Amino acid sequence: MSSDSRGGETRRKVIEAAVSLMDRVGYRSVTIDAVARASGVSKSTIYRHWSSRKELVLEAFSSHVDEVTEVVDTGDAIADLRTYLLKLAFRVSLGGAGSIVTGLIKDSFGRPEFAEIFRVKVIEPRRHVFMQILLRGQQRGQIRSDVDLKSAVDAIYGSIHHRLLMTGQPVDAAFASALSDFARLGLAARPEVA
Amino acid sequence: MSSDSRGGETRRKVIEAAVSLMDRVGYRSVTIDAVARASGVSKSTIYRHWSSRKELVLEAFSSHVDEVTEVVDTGDAIADLRTYLLKLAFRVSLGGAGSIVTGLIKDSFGRPEFAEIFRVKVIEPRRHVFMQILLRGQQRGQIRSDVDLKSAVDAIYGSIHHRLLMTGQPVDAAFASALSDFARLGLAARPEVA
Repeated sequence: MSSDSRGGETRRKVIEAAVSLMDRVGYRSVTIDAVARASGVSKSTIYRHWSSRKELVLEAFSSHVDEVTEVVDTGDAIADLRTYLLKLAFRVSLGGAGSIVTGLIKDSFGRPEFAEIFRVKVIEPRRHVFMQILLRGQQRGQIRSDVDLKSAVDAIYGSIHHRLLMTGQPVDAAFASALSDFARLGLAARPEVA
Repeated sequence: MSSDSRGGETRRKVIEAAVSLMDRVGYRSVTIDAVARASGVSKSTIYRHWSSRKELVLEAFSSHVDEVTEVVDTGDAIADLRTYLLKLAFRVSLGGAGSIVTGLIKDSFGRPEFAEIFRVKVIEPRRHVFMQILLRGQQRGQIRSDVDLKSAVDAIYGSIHHRLLMTGQPVDAAFASALSDFARLGLAARPEVA
């Protein structure tokens, strides 16, 4: 259904409405009712495309994060990592976005199927972006060859969720900046000690 | 009530039964019924001491983690950090303990009062242990003076939750070892480049 152009257009309108609601209100308020009103698409049509509210929100969130956090390879992996962290932090600190992430995580507990979709659509793509930046850096000698990159991604990405879910501290530019400084210390290749 | 010796003894029996159940079964199975059966303390008495199942589980989990992850100051902060991570990983990888952490986190969503108790009893004490290790290391010149220690704690502690909640990868000795290697690269003071 999504491959024909009318279906594609409908999906686009619904996703845009959901994204716009997400940035203004919290997770619980992005209901199918609200999205139907904002998009002008009927609830029954929305339910033909998405089986539940949380799947719609997940797709909207995921597609929008991909769009606003696209990574350009500048040739400097450490700088690219910093830019990506700043973009992610900016995205998460907007309006209701932090609430969207925690809401999706909560909805994935105890629901293995949805947890799998969440992992495939949200977590893995983000881990992949981090990993690509770090791999490019390692290939170019900008990142130490003895760093376990998976642990580095766990630590960098994990910091963001730790704040969102555990401590409630802000995920803002100051945080992204301090985190990328810390990551740089652990990652950046240094001149050999003479 | 907890200050008189009979109340203290009752609490101890209940907490011990809860800890023993936690290690064998998942979060949802540590019910007041099960704890009453295992401890020989009546449900009504348990409810006089804890207002809900989740508060009992939280206290049992928290007290037990404190006990099995006590940190000795060996004089080497980097080694102490590694030891603490290995102990935490061992604790979390036991039987139902990972499920206890994710269950408590889930129950803290949308419940600001419980979330606050969870933060005060579980998250902050663990952050405090990490921070004390890192501060001692900085004071002794074993850890770089230009590291933002809060970001370091976010990254180290966040890695554990990232695996438990997001990726489902194991939190085991191999993980703790790789994570402490990564942390060492970012933290350890090095000889100046000549």
